[in-house]
Amino acid sequence: MVTFSGIETQILDALRAIVGDDNVSAGASELELHSKDQSFHEGHLPEVVVWGQSSQQVADVLKLANDNGIPVTPWGAGSSLEGNPIPLHGGILLSLARMDAVVEVHADDFQVTVQAGKPHKDLNADLAKYGLFFPPDPGANATIGGMLANNAAGIRTVKYGASKDNVLAATVALADGRLIEVGSRSVKQSAGYNLLQLFVGSEGTLGIITEATLKLAPIPEHRSTMIATFDDMDKAVEAVVAVRGSGVDVAALEFLDQVAAMMLARAGMQIAPNNVLLMEVFNAHASGLEEDVSVVRDLCQDLDCVDFVAMTDRTAQAKLWEARHGAYETMVRMMPSMNFQIMDVAVPISAYPELVRHGHATLKEHGLMAALVGHAGDGNLHVTLPYADEAGLDTVKAINHAIVTKAQELGGTATGEHGVGIGKMGYMEAEHGVAIDVMRAVKQTFDPNGILNPGKVLPA
Amino acid sequence: MVTFSGIETQILDALRAIVGDDNVSAGASELELHSKDQSFHEGHLPEVVVWGQSSQQVADVLKLANDNGIPVTPWGAGSSLEGNPIPLHGGILLSLARMDAVVEVHADDFQVTVQAGKPHKDLNADLAKYGLFFPPDPGANATIGGMLANNAAGIRTVKYGASKDNVLAATVALADGRLIEVGSRSVKQSAGYNLLQLFVGSEGTLGIITEATLKLAPIPEHRSTMIATFDDMDKAVEAVVAVRGSGVDVAALEFLDQVAAMMLARAGMQIAPNNVLLMEVFNAHASGLEEDVSVVRDLCQDLDCVDFVAMTDRTAQAKLWEARHGAYETMVRMMPSMNFQIMDVAVPISAYPELVRHGHATLKEHGLMAALVGHAGDGNLHVTLPYADEAGLDTVKAINHAIVTKAQELGGTATGEHGVGIGKMGYMEAEHGVAIDVMRAVKQTFDPNGILNPGKVLPA
Repeated sequence: MVTFSGIETQILDALRAIVGDDNVSAGASELELHSKDQSFHEGHLPEVVVWGQSSQQVADVLKLANDNGIPVTPWGAGSSLEGNPIPLHGGILLSLARMDAVVEVHADDFQVTVQAGKPHKDLNADLAKYGLFFPPDPGANATIGGMLANNAAGIRTVKYGASKDNVLAATVALADGRLIEVGSRSVKQSAGYNLLQLFVGSEGTLGIITEATLKLAPIPEHRSTMIATFDDMDKAVEAVVAVRGSGVDVAALEFLDQVAAMMLARAGMQIAPNNVLLMEVFNAHASGLEEDVSVVRDLCQDLDCVDFVAMTDRTAQAKLWEARHGAYETMVRMMPSMNFQIMDVAVPISAYPELVRHGHATLKEHGLMAALVGHAGDGNLHVTLPYADEAGLDTVKAINHAIVTKAQELGGTATGEHGVGIGKMGYMEAEHGVAIDVMRAVKQTFDPNGILNPGKVLPA
Repeated sequence: MVTFSGIETQILDALRAIVGDDNVSAGASELELHSKDQSFHEGHLPEVVVWGQSSQQVADVLKLANDNGIPVTPWGAGSSLEGNPIPLHGGILLSLARMDAVVEVHADDFQVTVQAGKPHKDLNADLAKYGLFFPPDPGANATIGGMLANNAAGIRTVKYGASKDNVLAATVALADGRLIEVGSRSVKQSAGYNLLQLFVGSEGTLGIITEATLKLAPIPEHRSTMIATFDDMDKAVEAVVAVRGSGVDVAALEFLDQVAAMMLARAGMQIAPNNVLLMEVFNAHASGLEEDVSVVRDLCQDLDCVDFVAMTDRTAQAKLWEARHGAYETMVRMMPSMNFQIMDVAVPISAYPELVRHGHATLKEHGLMAALVGHAGDGNLHVTLPYADEAGLDTVKAINHAIVTKAQELGGTATGEHGVGIGKMGYMEAEHGVAIDVMRAVKQTFDPNGILNPGKVLPA
């Protein structure tokens, strides 16, 4: 284990000299606010919170920290779910939240250059007037930097890909204070090593993304949201595979099991308390949209869906997706005395039915009622596991372990979109084998003093 | 410059022990056949050609070479265009061509696992019975391993992305003989560093991809190929930007200037000797296809296109694309006394008109007649530069330099799809700045003895 220096007065002075007095705080409330994300992982206080105002300042803070052996944990919105930005070793909590400018909209290129601290929902509000949007949507109003660092995904990934698929270039501050540009505004590039994709998904352990050029998509002209309800869970999940295989280019394909649907229905969502698929298709033409809906309806009906609703009203659509995005918060509100562990695994789509069946069997075996929801269209499953005490947490851990292990056995991954953070480190050896040593060598190359977000991603 | 050992008898014996006698050759004709790719770069003989038969054999050859300081240059089909697989330092030419098995078709997942030596056209022939295909299409019958190593792209990239966007996992042999698995069959993954994308596009300088799992797409139900002809080159190029901005999901958007169109028309392609856009749209529905074509036609007519043909006959379509793919060979045949340098740059789409105008102005300035063709839909331009002698080559070099520099100035790249190889090394510093030092550090980490494809990608 690396030993880090504490933060002395002269370091605080140097930090103030870099970012200005207003952007350094060691006040108890700021430390507390930046001690944990939205996960169940235990928080840890940083020694100081520093808000970078520019790429150069972020680089300068890193140089100072690197020269003095001080850990630096980058922070966006604190909305992650695996403890990714918890400052486990104290030190500097480096927030990008005040770097939230839209640097340039390249409307003709369907691109935007933004600072890393820009929250993605705010970005999309700004972009609406161009008829464009940044498709990845993890639900929470995560920052662009956080989304890239975690390779966040969400409900639109089935059509548009994850964050990694929607970024072209970035400015990155390295551990030693160098500032580099990676990638290109040219969508086609084959010029040297793809450093961009090495930083994306590295959770701030190799460098800090301070600015990025993102790919945008045109806001779809025609859009239909469909709700298909099934009595039989297996058939609902089979419908996921069938719709994916049909060639219809769905823009969302979400699964809610009975428990999830029941809770959301009780919270006011217009769905039946049954196995539910929420789907969406976009189309440039109204007629194409109708044909897409008709293909999906036929497939669902062939699999005995008991109800199928397609709606094009934008307000109703927005309400539905808001409710879906709020699923986790809804569950938390409905069981205020409980804590929750929200788990995240993903498998090849053909293995999704088996994963879901295994998840249900595991819950049953442990006698726990929990909601299964998932970005089913790309094989991603979340289980929201409630617990009240130490014994409950043990059960939750056992269930989590069983499902993660199963996902890996099925050719899948321990994390589809929440990242490794603290919670999935224990599964990296099994998932990557010898490649984990290569990852360690990469970490050593980029951050020889181990100051960047220590205690995350790679098991010691 | 690293000094490499020559190949002694005991090394040849050790190679034979790894791959078998039939898979080692130091015969003059084999050495000659593996001394140069399809580019204008001068060839260099390897000392021995070795055909790997399995991932483990490739790894074992690398270990032997690494332990003995022998350079290894990987080889697929030898179809690259920047000298990427020329064994500049002799040593071992490691061909993957005999590793061409389809390991497994995961039809429900739209995935296939193949050995690296499988040529992509052969793969698509095998996959046709599943109604699936691997979309990247560089024209030549490149191997999957070569396409991944170079991040090859081609005419379908505008819709489906480049090779990097169509790969999920790979087996990679490292310089020291370790064999690792990178990526996942889960399309969603956020579990640690993206080593897969580090190997993709690294041109065999960081490791050798021996097997890969690729993303496949359904063969489109309905397909229309369009030819739009323009008197005014500027307007043809403006139409490229307009079509891209229209939201129609084009599957190909190719530009041929008058010189290119004239040559191809003379060679029998059914196009007018004028500025031509070749376009294609795919659609799941016949009606959607008609609407797409109608949008594209309107846009082209608004920009004064003088002729617009849309065809759905598959034979005519295949003939047209075959002719487009054969453009380079056609030019070579028409001017048998000339040599050709085919250059490759790419820019953000909004800069494409300026790039094309600059290309024409540069050719005019040097008094050279050359064909401009391009995967215009993603900002990629190729100029086929003929030369007969030393003086001609100097002119070609000057033109190449001017256009590459311009592309970089326009926010683009020195290579969109041919890779760096030998020819673009001189532009890497300008394109990447400080990041080139990070690439060097990565190279050092993965290949400390510099045995992997030495003399490529990174300038010394």
